[in-house]
Amino acid sequence: MTQVEDDIVTEFPLTIYINEEEFATMVCTPAHLEEMVIGFLASEGVIRFQREIKNFKIDEEQGFAYIEIEGKINTQRDFSKRFIGSCCGKSRQFYFQNDVQTTKTSTSKTTITADQCIKLMDMMQATSHVFKGTGGVHNAAICTGDEMIVGRADIGRHNALDKLYGHCLLNQISVRDKVLVFSGRISSEVMTKAAKIGVGIVLSKSAPTDLAIDLAHDLNITAVGFIRGGSFNVYSHPERIHQ
Amino acid sequence: MTQVEDDIVTEFPLTIYINEEEFATMVCTPAHLEEMVIGFLASEGVIRFQREIKNFKIDEEQGFAYIEIEGKINTQRDFSKRFIGSCCGKSRQFYFQNDVQTTKTSTSKTTITADQCIKLMDMMQATSHVFKGTGGVHNAAICTGDEMIVGRADIGRHNALDKLYGHCLLNQISVRDKVLVFSGRISSEVMTKAAKIGVGIVLSKSAPTDLAIDLAHDLNITAVGFIRGGSFNVYSHPERIHQ
Repeated sequence: MTQVEDDIVTEFPLTIYINEEEFATMVCTPAHLEEMVIGFLASEGVIRFQREIKNFKIDEEQGFAYIEIEGKINTQRDFSKRFIGSCCGKSRQFYFQNDVQTTKTSTSKTTITADQCIKLMDMMQATSHVFKGTGGVHNAAICTGDEMIVGRADIGRHNALDKLYGHCLLNQISVRDKVLVFSGRISSEVMTKAAKIGVGIVLSKSAPTDLAIDLAHDLNITAVGFIRGGSFNVYSHPERIHQ
Repeated sequence: MTQVEDDIVTEFPLTIYINEEEFATMVCTPAHLEEMVIGFLASEGVIRFQREIKNFKIDEEQGFAYIEIEGKINTQRDFSKRFIGSCCGKSRQFYFQNDVQTTKTSTSKTTITADQCIKLMDMMQATSHVFKGTGGVHNAAICTGDEMIVGRADIGRHNALDKLYGHCLLNQISVRDKVLVFSGRISSEVMTKAAKIGVGIVLSKSAPTDLAIDLAHDLNITAVGFIRGGSFNVYSHPERIHQ
């Protein structure tokens, strides 16, 4: 046995306080923390716009985020129930009950070409060089048909998507006409998050799960998967993809 | 565009009722559900042995598990707090507070050779042929130094480990002297689960995260990673690995 150096991935625990009350702890890759927290709170239905936040302070040293919002915490979650997902978990109850206020059915009129699907995936992968050595980090990007607007990486797929959502909220980027490009499998949870962010098209290298495809049908989202070697599959609402 | 067939991975939501009260919903790969539920309940501190379960019924059609246990639900969880992990989430609070009763510091005296590390990983990978087409499924196995006792796969890493735990409880397999072999990255959460199951050695193809290494030190667990091409790294308690 010889000792070999390798890259260790960081798991950074960030505990969020809202109005001096502990709300959640996220274990994440420590970059773009403000975006992540804003995106997470929006996705949980705690806030709808950045302006609802009166005060925002992150103590990176200790791993705490202190947020002040006006009024009480508005969350439709039933805290007496627990939700364990396949990975950061959704459940029937979750999207049927708890997500009902934040999961939007897409009204996107955007279409993209088959060629753009392939190019956007290439683009996202080309820029996601971080952590390539160790792997296992999820990469995600918000794009127009032609270019990447923002790309984020995180050890948690949840967090990568929350960072994108937060970025768009902080920069007032409209997402309805944008495309979400994701490095990993589209699970029911990723699809729910895409609907919360508000995109109409989701591109992935892998196939979606069966539950994610059902959701995509219901939420009017175009799910494109298996974008590999110049081809791909369309799993739902193919009307947004043209030649 | 031509329509291409591909394998779709199933996400199966299973809602668990304990003593007629809804406890949790797990989104999982629908195989070995009884093992998964038993392992999950043990890992949550609800039960310690299978005999504490008075009645166990699974309605696979509808996706419900009905469990009767003696007395009240014994869980140290504080339901007023939420725990969002990088993937099915742990947090400082989680292992410092909520897991304190179920996460055991290893007392394992087992040692294995460098050669066995490599062979056990090969063995686990050779048998995990299911879902290879679509990927993204986590494989895990409980082994002796020489052979695999049980291997399980699931779309959720949590679930794959819970299935192993449940299998060992149902079959009264002692785990203290066994080895956990895992296909994916060892996150803090996977390490916590390994401690709950009770193994002293964890083998992985990838590197552990920094938090997982800290935990492994504290919990007296030997973490071996990057088992690839005939070599590997030992991240904690190397005294259990010898030539």
